[in-house]
Amino acid sequence: MMNLLEHDNILPNSLAESVLYSMRAGGKRLRPILMRAAFESFGGRGDKVLPVAAALEMVHTYSLIHDDLPAMDDDDYRRGQLTNHKKFGEATAILAGDALLTRSFSVIGQAVGIQPEEKVYLMSYLSEAAGPTGMIAGQTLDMEAEDKESTLDQLEQIHNLKTGKLLTYAIVAGAYLAGVKPETLDLMKQFGTYIGLIFQVQDDILDVTGDASVLGKPVGSDEENKKSTYPKLLGLDGAKAQMDKYVNLAHQCLEQAEIKDSRLHELTVYLSRRTS
Amino acid sequence: MMNLLEHDNILPNSLAESVLYSMRAGGKRLRPILMRAAFESFGGRGDKVLPVAAALEMVHTYSLIHDDLPAMDDDDYRRGQLTNHKKFGEATAILAGDALLTRSFSVIGQAVGIQPEEKVYLMSYLSEAAGPTGMIAGQTLDMEAEDKESTLDQLEQIHNLKTGKLLTYAIVAGAYLAGVKPETLDLMKQFGTYIGLIFQVQDDILDVTGDASVLGKPVGSDEENKKSTYPKLLGLDGAKAQMDKYVNLAHQCLEQAEIKDSRLHELTVYLSRRTS
Repeated sequence: MMNLLEHDNILPNSLAESVLYSMRAGGKRLRPILMRAAFESFGGRGDKVLPVAAALEMVHTYSLIHDDLPAMDDDDYRRGQLTNHKKFGEATAILAGDALLTRSFSVIGQAVGIQPEEKVYLMSYLSEAAGPTGMIAGQTLDMEAEDKESTLDQLEQIHNLKTGKLLTYAIVAGAYLAGVKPETLDLMKQFGTYIGLIFQVQDDILDVTGDASVLGKPVGSDEENKKSTYPKLLGLDGAKAQMDKYVNLAHQCLEQAEIKDSRLHELTVYLSRRTS
Repeated sequence: MMNLLEHDNILPNSLAESVLYSMRAGGKRLRPILMRAAFESFGGRGDKVLPVAAALEMVHTYSLIHDDLPAMDDDDYRRGQLTNHKKFGEATAILAGDALLTRSFSVIGQAVGIQPEEKVYLMSYLSEAAGPTGMIAGQTLDMEAEDKESTLDQLEQIHNLKTGKLLTYAIVAGAYLAGVKPETLDLMKQFGTYIGLIFQVQDDILDVTGDASVLGKPVGSDEENKKSTYPKLLGLDGAKAQMDKYVNLAHQCLEQAEIKDSRLHELTVYLSRRTS
């Protein structure tokens, strides 16, 4: 009784192990890279973005853990290693995802060197981008679209929500922390949307033309799952032409935002040509 | 392409239906009631607590949806109706839980009439109370304790984390929004811990002596699940004596905090005598 408040904060080993397993699985760290690039492209300097980038990567990792669950995509491998639930069991995987999502907000809330108004903006926007009108809406629509023919417009909507929202968050948060004007923030939101679509078209193309050993996951799964994809709707050449359109529109956003630094341009090209 | 940003925010019907099903299932609304009582006991007036109370109830509801999942407690009924996954399927239930948890933070972030510093405190503290060193730690330890004998100290630790953290949040958030001193906040944290334990002892007692039709869930499930409980460790009379201890300690906290209003005293007594 006397020590009731002593065992106040406990991080159980099994939970820590499961969370760290997925956080350390690697991946491209694309969202942190985009956030830092956006921050520095607008003249931001120092480590102010780091906690926000970590929080975003935590949210991204949680979404992968829950997406892989048997009741969802039922995947056994991710980034070349067993998925979280295959390694630790379903219950721990659900809790590990919940833990990463929940904790991400206090990582921003407790960050040093970010003002309270900025924290409220970044936490609220993360909640929206990842929440039921953002990423979770995309996941829901994606599930409902299985085994159905989708139109190009529906496909864009799903990807914009499911993938685009968090990628856009990375870019907008970086620009916001560098102190850009609201008009520029709107341009970066648009840029983020194109980046999300470029990412997804290339994902679909790689599922047709990619190398499983480079990708770290099997190819041809879209065909197997009867998923609507860009190559299926537009043909492989049509999908590549669609990508070029998105790349041009993304570059236009950056020019309108008057960015001198070339890093976001380079990342746009990288994403359109990536092999993994 | 032109309307890319038009379908920016979508809340799919199926997701909304699943989320609202669980939010509207009722329950005691204990956490909102405690938050408002704490707020008004310290002289708070107006509706400032409402969005924070709603956010907390959302987090509580998410935790019930995920706890009921087949991989976790595998429950078919909750509050006298089918559990979320029984009604909407497992995938939607996982997403509904994720949606409630994620959205809760922007409900606080977008609240009117709360200062940015207050919002950062309330959002960060919610993340801690519900996260991997709070409620999720409790859930993990509870799973690991299944089919094992626990000591009274271990039992207290699990309940303090799993149930106590969110109940304490309710009380501390209410007191905080009323503008109390840090020392008083510490006293209310202690009070919240006792409230959590009182809640749990009575839960255990009701599982032995309660009426399933009043409770809205079956009794005797602890015995069936071989769970360690207060009556099992201390006997039924011992459990009741333990509760009286907690009730006295809770009242002492309120007296030290110099609360004139009797509502928190009354709620303490109610929780120790509740039949559902």
